[in-house]
Amino acid sequence: MLLINIFVFIGIIAAAVSGSLVGMKKRLDWFGVICLAVATALGGGIIRDVMIGHLPPVAFIKPIYFFVSVGTALITCIFYERITKLQNVIMLSDAVGLGVFTAVGANAAVMNHVHEPFLVVSMGLITGIGGGILRDIFAKDIPYVFRKEVYAIASILGAVSFLLTYNSVSHIFALYICLFITFVVRVVSFYYNVHFPVLKSDSAIGEEVKHS
Amino acid sequence: MLLINIFVFIGIIAAAVSGSLVGMKKRLDWFGVICLAVATALGGGIIRDVMIGHLPPVAFIKPIYFFVSVGTALITCIFYERITKLQNVIMLSDAVGLGVFTAVGANAAVMNHVHEPFLVVSMGLITGIGGGILRDIFAKDIPYVFRKEVYAIASILGAVSFLLTYNSVSHIFALYICLFITFVVRVVSFYYNVHFPVLKSDSAIGEEVKHS
Amino acid sequence: MLLINIFVFIGIIAAAVSGSLVGMKKRLDWFGVICLAVATALGGGIIRDVMIGHLPPVAFIKPIYFFVSVGTALITCIFYERITKLQNVIMLSDAVGLGVFTAVGANAAVMNHVHEPFLVVSMGLITGIGGGILRDIFAKDIPYVFRKEVYAIASILGAVSFLLTYNSVSHIFALYICLFITFVVRVVSFYYNVHFPVLKSDSAIGEEVKHS
Repeated sequence: MLLINIFVFIGIIAAAVSGSLVGMKKRLDWFGVICLAVATALGGGIIRDVMIGHLPPVAFIKPIYFFVSVGTALITCIFYERITKLQNVIMLSDAVGLGVFTAVGANAAVMNHVHEPFLVVSMGLITGIGGGILRDIFAKDIPYVFRKEVYAIASILGAVSFLLTYNSVSHIFALYICLFITFVVRVVSFYYNVHFPVLKSDSAIGEEVKHS
Repeated sequence: MLLINIFVFIGIIAAAVSGSLVGMKKRLDWFGVICLAVATALGGGIIRDVMIGHLPPVAFIKPIYFFVSVGTALITCIFYERITKLQNVIMLSDAVGLGVFTAVGANAAVMNHVHEPFLVVSMGLITGIGGGILRDIFAKDIPYVFRKEVYAIASILGAVSFLLTYNSVSHIFALYICLFITFVVRVVSFYYNVHFPVLKSDSAIGEEVKHS
Repeated sequence: MLLINIFVFIGIIAAAVSGSLVGMKKRLDWFGVICLAVATALGGGIIRDVMIGHLPPVAFIKPIYFFVSVGTALITCIFYERITKLQNVIMLSDAVGLGVFTAVGANAAVMNHVHEPFLVVSMGLITGIGGGILRDIFAKDIPYVFRKEVYAIASILGAVSFLLTYNSVSHIFALYICLFITFVVRVVSFYYNVHFPVLKSDSAIGEEVKHS
């Protein structure tokens, strides 16, 4: 489990950086930045653990994830300029994070419950994108993953690949397959700029938006 | 239980339509619309199941509700113009949904726990309005039910009627009484435009709003 | 336990007042004001109970807290002008509330689980500030505690003092130590206007905020 743990920490750090950057854009001070970093890094896992009834959530039992998030937030505050220049590193770490969170989430469902396929995929997805949703709610944004469907689609494809393989191959190998699929879908869609069209809003919708 | 299930599906569809319409007003693309539809349709039940410790929530065990919500969202996207013209159908389905969600929620409390009256009514109310609250948080609105108290009042009256009757009559009959009371209160208040006065804001409050 | 219960009610009332005032600033009507008051007063305890798996949460089993919150909201609506003049009373009650919620939260963790220090402090903090976070999410604000770090710091210091003492002294005495420490930190920082600097936003961040 050593290697997968390294990926988990990459994911935690990438999520904490993403939360910190949103916090700095919203002009929060260092404490607010830490709050957003922690929410982004730990939120998905906490929501998943609540859903599968694994209480208290792992995030409260293993404080290391919390302290890594706090440290990442402080480093991001200090080296803000340099970090924002590392666009590619951020994106790749983010994709690793999405993949490993999905894998760990789907696995947690299998470990705790009957192997209901829908539940396994849901828990992978919730762990993958839950932190980002929490970050955006706290930051008063409509969740970013609602606008960039590739996150959810990459996570769902990863979770499905875990579901299809974990009975035939070793658990750990299924985790890597999930991580790999999610990562590839996310990165390819980024570099080829894949995205799905926004539904054309007709004038009626536009009107309502104006008046609401 | 056949008939009550039909009402549940009417409620799921009405909630998904309501979530989809909010999503389209916010100019989300098809994926964001699906997210809001699912959150509105399943959110209340999920929050209730978390509260009563019935984990994982029913919504993850019975994927049919999820898929009906997704289907409803897609249909709403495609037939947006026609659906918005069905104001009365939407309102009536919405009232059925509020009633059946309240009934199912109050019943879930009774099935899982001691028959603490406050808990039963709370769970009816949370199931009835929780999805709408989640929808509005995701859509960056102050929850609509905070502004239109008739939803909560209809739901509370329905849940209380369930509470008063489920020991004297059969469970299923108490469910219908709850559905009927909630539905009637909601519909009557709609057609007679019943609403409670907003507290007059004095100038001091107005000032604070401006500066906040 | 008599005295600590009096402090709990002071805390509930202070939280309900704070929720009500936010609701009135947002021009919600009496029903929305009640919703925000209840969310602020009960939210922290409910989130904590979900996290430690103590379901259904105490707030649903002991309706007295709910009814006190509702009553407080109505009184705040009626005597708005007079209440807003009691700045010092509000602040001191708020500090009592933060202290007692932290104490009760840390104690709930100890009562329900292994005595994992991180979990105990987290549960104190979540109970202390969770209601305020919920209030601000419902009111469409970035959580106030993200901007005023003194709340979290006071609560964490209180919870740590509970953690350090509850094995050496009686439980009830440790609760009072926690309440006292939290209260003093909060009040002193208020009167001496202690706050931590917002990270200077450079022009790049400012730009992004403008365009987002």
